[in-house]
Amino acid sequence: MKKVIPFAHDLLEQTINPGDIAIDATCGNGHDTLVLSKLVGDKGTVFAFDIQNQAIERTKQLLDQASVQNVQLHMVDHQYAPDYISEEDYGRIGGAIFNLGYLPGSDKQTITTPESTIAAVDSIAALLKQGGLIAIVVYYGHQGGEREKQALLDYVSSLDQKKFSVLQYAFINQQNNPPFLLAVQKRK
Amino acid sequence: MKKVIPFAHDLLEQTINPGDIAIDATCGNGHDTLVLSKLVGDKGTVFAFDIQNQAIERTKQLLDQASVQNVQLHMVDHQYAPDYISEEDYGRIGGAIFNLGYLPGSDKQTITTPESTIAAVDSIAALLKQGGLIAIVVYYGHQGGEREKQALLDYVSSLDQKKFSVLQYAFINQQNNPPFLLAVQKRK
Repeated sequence: MKKVIPFAHDLLEQTINPGDIAIDATCGNGHDTLVLSKLVGDKGTVFAFDIQNQAIERTKQLLDQASVQNVQLHMVDHQYAPDYISEEDYGRIGGAIFNLGYLPGSDKQTITTPESTIAAVDSIAALLKQGGLIAIVVYYGHQGGEREKQALLDYVSSLDQKKFSVLQYAFINQQNNPPFLLAVQKRK
Repeated sequence: MKKVIPFAHDLLEQTINPGDIAIDATCGNGHDTLVLSKLVGDKGTVFAFDIQNQAIERTKQLLDQASVQNVQLHMVDHQYAPDYISEEDYGRIGGAIFNLGYLPGSDKQTITTPESTIAAVDSIAALLKQGGLIAIVVYYGHQGGEREKQALLDYVSSLDQKKFSVLQYAFINQQNNPPFLLAVQKRK
């Protein structure tokens, strides 16, 4: 069985087409940004966000090493993501990914919060193309993580089933709170 | 995103090889039996169980129509499945499937029970080949279903993570208690 992150990437690969727009809502170390960059290709664009300078710098470095040129990096809260995308491009948004929690390798003081995360998921979900998908990798072992997890589960469970399919993909016999996936797909 | 039953079949397809033994623990109308029959091929065997004569008859009819000859049908509680397989064949068990609840199209009076289901999963899990997988499609909208669901979740969540990976695959924003999948894979 696929682990959580490879499974999330598989889902995004199935929904993001070359030429699409994709969003990395929490670019972190840039690994997902690079994955999305390949999926949208030369004619597509990735919008990547993070509130931490350290994350923006690491992502920039990774993208430079790979000579990637189709990514726009913004150091801003992901709930404002739609402000950075032209309205005429909204219909091209094929997918987005969130990694909740803290930046790996950081001091763990800066974490995602339920209010900002839900606002961001909500605004991006509204703009997705038909069939487009948001993958949310939920880390929740840190302080504040349980609260964010519960708030997010409540939010996505309440999404109208006529408009969205919401999948939970979780390994449930593991210790140490491993991350699980929530996938929100806009129905066709 | 794949629906629950196609996703369960995909997982079984990845773990059951031609020549393997497979188990349909609740043959019902025979649809899964037929799927397993194709996966194990001419050199493999499917052991299919059900406690209802109606289910055995329907499955037999479906298999006859498809000229399937690699299935052994037994009208017995699935917790006794291992008694019907030779000990020397235990290492060939590549996969099993359960559909919990009642027989579709029946009077809904006969349902799977947590005691029998857990006993069956436990005994089959012990006999699986390395990498082998049990797919459990959990219907729980009927009377008694919620109790079985909870007991089963408690049981599979307690399986040793060094020996098994346990995945929950569930659409969580749908009304009317749609079925979800629990997949138990023996680690290599």
